[in-house]
Amino acid sequence: MNVAYLEDGSLGFRDDYPKPHPGSGEVLLQIRLASICGTDIALVNGYAAFTGVPGHEFVAQVIGAGQQVDETWLGQRVVAEINQWCGKCEFCLDSIYSHCTQRQVIGIRDHQGAFAQYLVVKANTLHRLPDHITDQQAVLIEPLAAAFRIVEQIKHLSYHRVLLIGAGRLGQLIARVMALQSVELFVLTRHQKQRRLLQELPLSCVDEAQVQTRSMDIVIEASGQASGFELALKAIRPSGVCVLKSTYAHGQQINLAELVIHEIQIWGSRCGPFSAAISALNHGEVAVESLIEAIYPLSDINAAFEKLREPACMKVLLCP
Amino acid sequence: MNVAYLEDGSLGFRDDYPKPHPGSGEVLLQIRLASICGTDIALVNGYAAFTGVPGHEFVAQVIGAGQQVDETWLGQRVVAEINQWCGKCEFCLDSIYSHCTQRQVIGIRDHQGAFAQYLVVKANTLHRLPDHITDQQAVLIEPLAAAFRIVEQIKHLSYHRVLLIGAGRLGQLIARVMALQSVELFVLTRHQKQRRLLQELPLSCVDEAQVQTRSMDIVIEASGQASGFELALKAIRPSGVCVLKSTYAHGQQINLAELVIHEIQIWGSRCGPFSAAISALNHGEVAVESLIEAIYPLSDINAAFEKLREPACMKVLLCP
Repeated sequence: MNVAYLEDGSLGFRDDYPKPHPGSGEVLLQIRLASICGTDIALVNGYAAFTGVPGHEFVAQVIGAGQQVDETWLGQRVVAEINQWCGKCEFCLDSIYSHCTQRQVIGIRDHQGAFAQYLVVKANTLHRLPDHITDQQAVLIEPLAAAFRIVEQIKHLSYHRVLLIGAGRLGQLIARVMALQSVELFVLTRHQKQRRLLQELPLSCVDEAQVQTRSMDIVIEASGQASGFELALKAIRPSGVCVLKSTYAHGQQINLAELVIHEIQIWGSRCGPFSAAISALNHGEVAVESLIEAIYPLSDINAAFEKLREPACMKVLLCP
Repeated sequence: MNVAYLEDGSLGFRDDYPKPHPGSGEVLLQIRLASICGTDIALVNGYAAFTGVPGHEFVAQVIGAGQQVDETWLGQRVVAEINQWCGKCEFCLDSIYSHCTQRQVIGIRDHQGAFAQYLVVKANTLHRLPDHITDQQAVLIEPLAAAFRIVEQIKHLSYHRVLLIGAGRLGQLIARVMALQSVELFVLTRHQKQRRLLQELPLSCVDEAQVQTRSMDIVIEASGQASGFELALKAIRPSGVCVLKSTYAHGQQINLAELVIHEIQIWGSRCGPFSAAISALNHGEVAVESLIEAIYPLSDINAAFEKLREPACMKVLLCP
């Protein structure tokens, strides 16, 4: 089958990758559309020492089922959770599937990814899609779920003023999710294109000079830059929460005394609830289509990654 | 009056410091006993660029009152909150007094400290002491309250396995407070004396080799060492909380990607509820007297600090 294959930091098209077969509890998916994420770029740059087929944002159709799979899945249009969990470890037994100690992560860890014609996943990680969610919306459900993870984490907090640092691919989705909450939202942008996309919603943008020290109840760092992290620690109020949403490539220097004196909290945030993302798309609460800039055939994988290197490039999709 | 005075990193005894007078809303305290804290040592080493009379752990008697102070305070044996708050800022109006934006901090920031015969504080920061709390217990109420702050912060969490890193002056108090919670508590010690003090309670100790990676629901870092912080990030389970209790002198390198991937949270923790500390001492729930190693007259301030330099030295008190 056709795939994009990453080996030794080199990503290329292959048409000879073996088609997978579903085992017990698994389904065979035909990928309809995939999307390239910042993590995929990081993988190409050496993150997680990944060799294989990347890709974890996708929408697909179930075309085969292994044993012990409900056959009503066949023919369904679906998305699948990025974390393929074991169901047996202490975290799975606690329903914290995203931290399964034995998890495989689609296209990132010990699992083939979605930059391919076909993919096998566990049936219990599938989500059916309502008919009027389009493929171009559905392909963004995984990162949209990651944005909803923030809401899930901070829901017990009392907060009003939220600063979002970064309005790139993930930041745009976070902005749309946070705009649904009853908060005063400030989005720090660096590019005119980022601002234009937010102003369409409409959401107002700020630049760094407008961010006051110790003024924000919540700061969401989604720039992945050292400067963004430093600004987050400056902008957060005493007892406030900084949510880190990017996987940072490098170590970062931090003044721990500042955290203690101001009782600042730093929270890592990763994968989120697919159901919340599907529901938001189903009810038209978030608009994501304007983020899609181009669709390439899988055979043009290098052109697609080249396109992503353009300043402030948003989502680039792959059609197998 | 007699004080210990810190100037240009040099701490010395002075008998010519002007006796303060209480203004409106203030009381004049006669210090009965003071205690030296790790922060005082840090001040001498240059932390917070402090010049003046240090000392913020103390027990005292009210011997004078300014205007608008309830006269029943006169003669009372008391402790006073370390944070002298304004009562008007957004944090005070929200009852988060320890983060008052205009706060003076006794013996640390813009306020005379307790290594002195007399001290003026705001009457609304006083706490009366029950008769059967001794002076040697009461002098440790401020750091004991800081230990109770952890319980206040994590009370809404579900947790079972707690690792405390550090069993020095503050760590010993934290161990005593956490032992009151229904948790499996592991205390990482570095000195035989620390272990002996904990085993008396009795509490069991571990060394670093016994701490498993990603095994703890809560890790409390109270060693103030870079190695302690690194161990905390290694020992904490996914979605777990690392509480930072020490004011660290230096910047620290941190791998933020680890925080994101495992959704680890880092929480700064500073001053705590005096009422909880007083109640625990009043009901005999925590034993602190065994931590006191020596009492020096204020005129022997340098000998007292010299004593503190002994390995694993616990609390050293000053009697004005």
